[in-house]
Amino acid sequence: MAEELTARAAVTSADVARLAGVSRATVSFVLNDTQAHRVSDSTRARVLAAADQLGYVPHAAARSLRAGRSNLVLMPASVSAVGRLVSAWLDDLHSELERHGYTTVLHAGRFPDAVGAARAWAELRPAAVVALDGDGLTAEAAGVLRRAGVRATVAFAARPAEGVYTIAFDHARIGAIAAEHLISRGRTTIGVVMPKERGLDTFARPRLAGAEGVAARSRASVRAVEMAYTRESAAELAARWRESGLDGVFAYNDEYAALLMRALQGEGISVPEDVAVVGCDDLVVAALERPALTTVRLDLPAPARIADIVHELVGTGKAPEMPGVEPILIHRQSS
Amino acid sequence: MAEELTARAAVTSADVARLAGVSRATVSFVLNDTQAHRVSDSTRARVLAAADQLGYVPHAAARSLRAGRSNLVLMPASVSAVGRLVSAWLDDLHSELERHGYTTVLHAGRFPDAVGAARAWAELRPAAVVALDGDGLTAEAAGVLRRAGVRATVAFAARPAEGVYTIAFDHARIGAIAAEHLISRGRTTIGVVMPKERGLDTFARPRLAGAEGVAARSRASVRAVEMAYTRESAAELAARWRESGLDGVFAYNDEYAALLMRALQGEGISVPEDVAVVGCDDLVVAALERPALTTVRLDLPAPARIADIVHELVGTGKAPEMPGVEPILIHRQSS
Repeated sequence: MAEELTARAAVTSADVARLAGVSRATVSFVLNDTQAHRVSDSTRARVLAAADQLGYVPHAAARSLRAGRSNLVLMPASVSAVGRLVSAWLDDLHSELERHGYTTVLHAGRFPDAVGAARAWAELRPAAVVALDGDGLTAEAAGVLRRAGVRATVAFAARPAEGVYTIAFDHARIGAIAAEHLISRGRTTIGVVMPKERGLDTFARPRLAGAEGVAARSRASVRAVEMAYTRESAAELAARWRESGLDGVFAYNDEYAALLMRALQGEGISVPEDVAVVGCDDLVVAALERPALTTVRLDLPAPARIADIVHELVGTGKAPEMPGVEPILIHRQSS
Repeated sequence: MAEELTARAAVTSADVARLAGVSRATVSFVLNDTQAHRVSDSTRARVLAAADQLGYVPHAAARSLRAGRSNLVLMPASVSAVGRLVSAWLDDLHSELERHGYTTVLHAGRFPDAVGAARAWAELRPAAVVALDGDGLTAEAAGVLRRAGVRATVAFAARPAEGVYTIAFDHARIGAIAAEHLISRGRTTIGVVMPKERGLDTFARPRLAGAEGVAARSRASVRAVEMAYTRESAAELAARWRESGLDGVFAYNDEYAALLMRALQGEGISVPEDVAVVGCDDLVVAALERPALTTVRLDLPAPARIADIVHELVGTGKAPEMPGVEPILIHRQSS
């Protein structure tokens, strides 16, 4: 049996107007709660009853256009890049934005350039765009958003762009801190794991560059090693490890670190004796790994604070500056 | 220094019409590629040049209204409920939907009831709604979506609802399979972990109910045990374990299972001798835990297949039925 879902014509505000015996403009005034126009209580009640009877839902974009305000906050999101650390934080941020009356949508589209992305986001007419991975957000893209009525563009990024409220977050610092630590532990040939998974490249590349920058100022060398988050890929990398001569590795994050560590142990390679391993994120299980995992912790700003900033920017176009994200090395037994 | 982002008035199609010297309707015909109206090539070029110069972006909702088609697929999403397993699958689904010309947004709003949720989703005028957690999707909510022009409502759910293309996925089966296995391993007092994290309740409750249903037909008993995904919560639970008398536990998923297993081991409680542990999802690291983790594997349908179904429903209102998700127990050393 094939499922059949009969497509009926969508209900429009014209249908509501007809049933209520009022103009389409009046329907719009009532449903969008526009204060600029006076509508009698009885007319208002008739419109609401008609909308209810027909099951009419106003367009978010149309409503934002008429009321001069959207309640959407759009966050560009590659779902796989949202790890355990960030997912709990994001949930809290969504709750805090809800407290201010906003609804969050995560936009999963991928685009060849920043302006193309901004155009796609702008089509939803959000009040604000909040980008966790804001390094690609250009002044030109911010202009596209602004002209489409987006009132706040907030980004975590290494460098500020014009028209973007930037919270400093330099992924190169993460790689640099990990490399500095490994060098301080006497390691001279350091691998940096580059995940093969899509969407992680934008975070992995600056981490590698940061490690390379530190190595260039020391006698240590840094080399990128590709790895997918699968048992096969980790085992294959571990099988070739001895010939690689690597005595330290920054494994992108705690998940890749834990997986690689187990694969290395499976090959009889000791951590930290043969290879020192450093992860990132200080996930709940990092301290429970054997050996306990050295990691780089990222103290993200309180979600309530970000939500306040978004709300202030939407309302007034201004917000006080915020301190950036400063990574901290947590030294444990794996290094 | 306070950041100031000057809010300029948004560019509208009226601005484009004025600059191009054409009517607003003509702008709409050109920018929305409406085939029903003839516009000369020179007029078309003038409109496109004006839109480009002003940086005008059409509304997604307005465009969908005029062109009779939206390219948005909306997925309700509690980010923290999207685990490692699902995030890779979701990324693939987004790619497959892109292949058909759709863009996916994840809607993070929380709502007291299905109709309220449907109204909020409908405001974005998506072509389709795809709910991973579709147990709450009612026929009434599907009606709200349909009347707002949503052409496909797809849900993973235990039971079909009218107007919803349902892919059978009964979380109670997961709990039942885990409990059956633990009982077959001679366990009689079984704990079922209920995560304290928000958004997981809708999955955890049916899993518990499934385990309880199996226990009711045996001499074993089942008890809910609350646990947050923190080291503290796991340690606290482990410290009280001996007095609880539990000799088996279904730990919601592999992540909670791994965390609990380490906390139990920290208390000198042996797995599986003292307590048999079962997870869910068969994550990459499950087989690498010590002891290797018994788990329930969920073979989700191929993302390409789901994308095809969505596209067929949007285009024709019909699609062939799909087999449901059948959980499979993977027996390893932890039980």
